[in-house]
Amino acid sequence: MSTTQQWRDHFDGLRAYEEAVALLYWDMRTYMPDQGAANRSASIGFLSTESFRRRTGETYQQLLAAMEQETLTGIEAISFAKAKEAFDRDSKIPEAEYQTFITLISEAESVWEKAKDANDWSMFEPYLEKIVAMERQFVEYWGYDAHPYDALLHDYEPGMTVATLDPLFAELRQAIIGLLGQLEGKDFPTLDWSADRETQIALNQEWLLDIGYDFTSGRLDETVHPFQTTINRKDARITTKYDENDYRNSVFGTMHEAGHATYEQGIEPELDSLGLGDGASMGIHESQSLFFENFIGRNQGFLDARYHGLQQAIPSLADVPFERFYAAVNEVKPSLIRIEADELTYALHIIIRYELEKRLMTKELEVKDLPQEWNRLYKEYLGVDVPSDAKGVLQDVHWSGGSFGYFPSYALGLVYAAQLNEALRRDVDNVDGLIAAGTLAPIKGWLKENIHRHGKSKTPAELIEAATGQSISVAPLVNYLTKKYTRVVEAL
Amino acid sequence: MSTTQQWRDHFDGLRAYEEAVALLYWDMRTYMPDQGAANRSASIGFLSTESFRRRTGETYQQLLAAMEQETLTGIEAISFAKAKEAFDRDSKIPEAEYQTFITLISEAESVWEKAKDANDWSMFEPYLEKIVAMERQFVEYWGYDAHPYDALLHDYEPGMTVATLDPLFAELRQAIIGLLGQLEGKDFPTLDWSADRETQIALNQEWLLDIGYDFTSGRLDETVHPFQTTINRKDARITTKYDENDYRNSVFGTMHEAGHATYEQGIEPELDSLGLGDGASMGIHESQSLFFENFIGRNQGFLDARYHGLQQAIPSLADVPFERFYAAVNEVKPSLIRIEADELTYALHIIIRYELEKRLMTKELEVKDLPQEWNRLYKEYLGVDVPSDAKGVLQDVHWSGGSFGYFPSYALGLVYAAQLNEALRRDVDNVDGLIAAGTLAPIKGWLKENIHRHGKSKTPAELIEAATGQSISVAPLVNYLTKKYTRVVEAL
Repeated sequence: MSTTQQWRDHFDGLRAYEEAVALLYWDMRTYMPDQGAANRSASIGFLSTESFRRRTGETYQQLLAAMEQETLTGIEAISFAKAKEAFDRDSKIPEAEYQTFITLISEAESVWEKAKDANDWSMFEPYLEKIVAMERQFVEYWGYDAHPYDALLHDYEPGMTVATLDPLFAELRQAIIGLLGQLEGKDFPTLDWSADRETQIALNQEWLLDIGYDFTSGRLDETVHPFQTTINRKDARITTKYDENDYRNSVFGTMHEAGHATYEQGIEPELDSLGLGDGASMGIHESQSLFFENFIGRNQGFLDARYHGLQQAIPSLADVPFERFYAAVNEVKPSLIRIEADELTYALHIIIRYELEKRLMTKELEVKDLPQEWNRLYKEYLGVDVPSDAKGVLQDVHWSGGSFGYFPSYALGLVYAAQLNEALRRDVDNVDGLIAAGTLAPIKGWLKENIHRHGKSKTPAELIEAATGQSISVAPLVNYLTKKYTRVVEAL
Repeated sequence: MSTTQQWRDHFDGLRAYEEAVALLYWDMRTYMPDQGAANRSASIGFLSTESFRRRTGETYQQLLAAMEQETLTGIEAISFAKAKEAFDRDSKIPEAEYQTFITLISEAESVWEKAKDANDWSMFEPYLEKIVAMERQFVEYWGYDAHPYDALLHDYEPGMTVATLDPLFAELRQAIIGLLGQLEGKDFPTLDWSADRETQIALNQEWLLDIGYDFTSGRLDETVHPFQTTINRKDARITTKYDENDYRNSVFGTMHEAGHATYEQGIEPELDSLGLGDGASMGIHESQSLFFENFIGRNQGFLDARYHGLQQAIPSLADVPFERFYAAVNEVKPSLIRIEADELTYALHIIIRYELEKRLMTKELEVKDLPQEWNRLYKEYLGVDVPSDAKGVLQDVHWSGGSFGYFPSYALGLVYAAQLNEALRRDVDNVDGLIAAGTLAPIKGWLKENIHRHGKSKTPAELIEAATGQSISVAPLVNYLTKKYTRVVEAL
């Protein structure tokens, strides 16, 4: 068998493990009977370890060495280069330290959950101390050119650096704070957001069909913490939760997950056999979910065209004029909790975490001072007083899992989405009309052509530059937010 | 690590693969979106091959050799003996021939499906010729004492032989034909069996709760061809199909699958780590499903106690007295299709297949003469004329999959179930009262103690003898059927 065929077989085998583990997780979070949990965890653990061995073991190392001897071109060369880079990066961490880290974060996650419930930072602090110490060490193993945090960013956003992010985030923060100033004193309408489960199920189905979510390559199910998961290239599933007190969570959350799924469904299947069948980065992935959630789902024309149906489904809207509804759906209110933040202030929550993580890595900041610094930044950026660590520094799961460098992706998603939105409108006529009509084929076609199909065969920067003709820039996001909130204010 | 710990780890690892493959199948047959099929099949194929390698490869052979050096007692000795026997048996087939066989049956299954649809025996005949030729050869590799068919029986019913089955089936056939004679000329009532989907769903839920199916360790879902599957020891799922023209299929079919699941849920979890976490045989497994379907679900008191509820759920029963319903549910009618057969004539369908398979193995019968011989036996045993091969020799999937020796399990299930039913009534008071009341805990406790918990750590014969004090016997089945149809005739 040729070396390149072995290479493809290697990834096809990994794909089988990934499909199994993804389905075991999906089922655990949707349909699994309670008592199946202990065996299920053991099976996931065992198969994940098997898959890890395939990605790191001697057989794979020999294959890497054999591939190095081949004259590779095109997509195969990219496949090898990416795999080799990932392998070299992983190899830099001594195995014993990696094992210690895995044990540490699995303990830390459950400690974090208890600490958050008990509003007790001191429970979690010693674990985070150890995690940060190990992250700092890993950064040294991996190496970096300009800033230690660059080594962490690379994991989630290949090629992204502090040198790029610092001015970008400064500009974005400035603009958001400016817009917040303009919105100050404006009263957003307070609506009744309750709706029964059946109404929400019907609404989700209708909107998913409107945006052309491909049910022949996916499903919608219920879970406690909604997620998107790719079982295989033609089976990208989404989940939601029906909160009867607030239908916005399921309706806009489902649009968000459908954006992730549409990306996954659109990746060229042949990339799976080359280890390139994934999103280009967390930020690019998030740009697709945010595009569907905000640029489609919260689009004025989209909502207006569906408002009559909404009023029929939700009796409390019967006497609410569309303008009021549109303003209420886009309410801006600086707040404490990232995952409940509105479209405008969301990025500020991210920038705070970015600042803190960056300084933790340079040792300008120590874990013990984190709560105080957290609270100070929330006051400075968002103007809110943090009443408790549970609603402050303990709110996110990420650090307990050692995911430093992840948060910026969420803001990058907004930035990329706005850049793509601008380029899309340059290339495709009457985008707002298409969105209102639920005729998304030209829009999805453009996203597939420019983003989805490439998987991770291109870097985020390559994709954004090819699609928009520009490198990363916050200007489109600032323009979009400025226009949007001008309209929202008019609707007040 | 000790050799016996390695032994347990081996089976724990296999269990993880089995859980993954079982879930991948379950999902494929219940919830998977259509387009996921191609990747899904590839993943199942890959992981099945990985699991096969673990069960046969060099690492496992070394482990077997190391275990041979250990002084084993109790359950570990049984574990090793069963595993060694299975390995030795598999090793007798040359690998190249086994590969040829696997390829042959995977082609043959799809050819069989087409041949059945087209009612064209000649399409399937050459494939069955080859399969039978290989089975004959395998039998020689495996070896046998008295009859070549014994080597095939062993796969599904360890220890079972033609010498045991011949007189048993002769006696059973005689008794059934006698009972059929007594029923001749009796007119069973014709009822309207239609019910809408929602009614059937509610009915299934209610009856499953009545019989104490453990929903914390299982689920009920919909599929095209219902089955029971064990995802893990505490996750034994059942499936059903809602035929709006005939609710008996889902209601009694669900009782049947719940019997299989209750067996699986009751196996001692620690047997999984010893390769003994399975049913003792296909026959014993079928005895549990048939016990729940026939001895509970079609029990007169059980149905009587639920009849008022049934009449409310299904309006067409409003004016039907219970006696009429009970007679109709137990209608006896010699017919062509095994899977549609009633409780009395079902075994005759099995005995026909047993006779044919046995003679194919001794070469008293050749594949080309199979349709003619099939039709002759259906006329002789059941008194029916076979109008087409599609409704005759082509009706079952088993032979296309090379499953020779499987069919007798279905009749053995009936035989065992009746023996267990008799012993249960010896040990537990007021069984009919408990069944009518839906207070099945003492009955399920007895089954768990005597059958379920042992997994395959005991042979079918050991289980039956320990539970009933007798070796295999058709007398209890004949007594049960005689009494039952006496009551049915009274109800006519």
